[in-house]
Amino acid sequence: MSETIIKFGILGCAEIARKVGRSIILAPNATIVAVGSRSAEKAARFAADNGFPAGTRAYGSYDAVLDDPEVDAVYVPLPTSLHAKWAIQAARKKKHLLLEKPVAVDVAEFDGIVEACVASGVQFMDGTMWMHHPRTATMKEFVSDERAFGKLRAMHTCFAFAADPDFLENDIRVKPDLDSHGALGDAGWYCIRSILWGNDYELPKSVTALRGPVLNKAGVILSCGASLYWEDGKVATFHCSFLSHLTMDITAIGTKGTLQVHDFVVPFQESEASFSVASESGFNELVTGWVTKPAEHIVSTSLPQEALMVKEFSSLVGAIKAGGSQPEMKWPIISRKTQLVLDAVKLSIKRGFEPVEVVG
Amino acid sequence: MSETIIKFGILGCAEIARKVGRSIILAPNATIVAVGSRSAEKAARFAADNGFPAGTRAYGSYDAVLDDPEVDAVYVPLPTSLHAKWAIQAARKKKHLLLEKPVAVDVAEFDGIVEACVASGVQFMDGTMWMHHPRTATMKEFVSDERAFGKLRAMHTCFAFAADPDFLENDIRVKPDLDSHGALGDAGWYCIRSILWGNDYELPKSVTALRGPVLNKAGVILSCGASLYWEDGKVATFHCSFLSHLTMDITAIGTKGTLQVHDFVVPFQESEASFSVASESGFNELVTGWVTKPAEHIVSTSLPQEALMVKEFSSLVGAIKAGGSQPEMKWPIISRKTQLVLDAVKLSIKRGFEPVEVVG
Repeated sequence: MSETIIKFGILGCAEIARKVGRSIILAPNATIVAVGSRSAEKAARFAADNGFPAGTRAYGSYDAVLDDPEVDAVYVPLPTSLHAKWAIQAARKKKHLLLEKPVAVDVAEFDGIVEACVASGVQFMDGTMWMHHPRTATMKEFVSDERAFGKLRAMHTCFAFAADPDFLENDIRVKPDLDSHGALGDAGWYCIRSILWGNDYELPKSVTALRGPVLNKAGVILSCGASLYWEDGKVATFHCSFLSHLTMDITAIGTKGTLQVHDFVVPFQESEASFSVASESGFNELVTGWVTKPAEHIVSTSLPQEALMVKEFSSLVGAIKAGGSQPEMKWPIISRKTQLVLDAVKLSIKRGFEPVEVVG
Repeated sequence: MSETIIKFGILGCAEIARKVGRSIILAPNATIVAVGSRSAEKAARFAADNGFPAGTRAYGSYDAVLDDPEVDAVYVPLPTSLHAKWAIQAARKKKHLLLEKPVAVDVAEFDGIVEACVASGVQFMDGTMWMHHPRTATMKEFVSDERAFGKLRAMHTCFAFAADPDFLENDIRVKPDLDSHGALGDAGWYCIRSILWGNDYELPKSVTALRGPVLNKAGVILSCGASLYWEDGKVATFHCSFLSHLTMDITAIGTKGTLQVHDFVVPFQESEASFSVASESGFNELVTGWVTKPAEHIVSTSLPQEALMVKEFSSLVGAIKAGGSQPEMKWPIISRKTQLVLDAVKLSIKRGFEPVEVVG
């Protein structure tokens, strides 16, 4: 393949940029050419420590990355409160935008980002890696199979991990001025996205936060949940937390089948991932056992999901660069819906767990 | 063992009485001596069809079973609306009481049943079979292990099955005058019990029904859910339904570990049952995989869980009959707590999804 190689600049030296940096190197149609930090020295050390390609330019500012004419696209893993500023600047400078999740402080701010991307004709995609694992497509086939799964009725999703005391005190994800969504933005984002994914991105009619969220002294969410429902009777719940043991589940229940996965955000291992399905299960005659048990499916992948994300993004960017293609709007649209639900959960907590209508 | 053999009478020929009848025969310390129905002929046919012991007396009324002096204990699988009448009569006639779940129309009615049992000194137990599987005890060891599981933070449980059109039209479980709790009583009962089980039977502070329950024309619940929370920050949700594919999950998340089981009410197979646990899981350095994956545990059982239920009940009855033992109050106490939460879910639905304080 003589596909265009998309040249990335990275804004900042966040921990997550190590994983995504590796994935840009692994993706066959992408490479890293620049990294910027508040100090050029730090950027250079980050590039060296993480095996970035020889010749990667290390800049002492984010602006310098955006001004580098060779940079096609930027990966932005900055704290959420800085997303709008830097994402909009990047778009204005015609840089395609791979933006870490949660995408914005609220949907109004996100709309500003999308507007800037549209005005400049650049591709937008958020950093929700699991969307790009081939397992996700295989699971989607199952839940879309009317014969095997029927119609979706209920979902429950969960992403929790036990943050250590240092994280709970000092991480940017517990600071109201940096990542104000806390566990809802960091972990709940995935839960919300998976629920929307299961519902073919149909927004729920209403979102109600569950009683009993845990906030820190600054009001940042450390643990919360919500219930969602759709006009046609579908329901969903999720739970996200920094305060309990690593758990990442999707359960999707249709009229005829059930899907279960226990490592949806980060698969247990990189080269393959599994999920289980059951279809038209029932009991034996005396109800002393099941006549069909759930079956496990294993999906292999030659590239890690984050490299597939970069590959997909770069492929879209390549098509735009080659001329003739417009940015794929699916990606900002599902980011926006995820943010809309996230905003609704926060508003519902603020309103004392009243339901919040979601208007797309 | 020269343990007393407890002689059972069965009130009615419900479908579930076939399974429990078999389990009474399987239990080493129990046998069936009588079955009553509205017609003696039907009772006799039921006994013959289900291999009840030769000599089982077939009566044309429930009263005749209660008046049979050889009957030590009765198993009552009647519709919920008839529980109070027949359970109280049974207790007054000094029959020990194995009562099908849901135990009563409401907790006030259940208190009448317990009062009658206490006054007569008879044992009470409800028919929640999974409590008696050795897997349940093994799972309890895990969630009680401070080192491996830490403190419980969140639970989600689900029991759904796809009832066929005939069930949804004609089954007693969709009739307001028979089993007025619908899916909440039939399936949600197990969800509530499992949440209480995980919480060492500590009642939640409040229960809030989730928006989007499905009721039939008569107002009987076909599908619903609720969220529960405890003063100390623990939370739980559950979903129960007659309208979606067979699913029966417990997820219990502690500060240090996670428990998962996908067949908690009726194990996939009779002779063994599994569950999975993860403890102090974390990611590898680049967050591209888990350093410890959940591990599956398999627990074998020589008797099916319902026979172990009968055995436990009969053992308690035997100790009372032998003299010196009082009825074990653990069983009516946990039945009552389950009913209290069930009542709260119904009240919350009635009140438009307002939270209901649970007062024990």
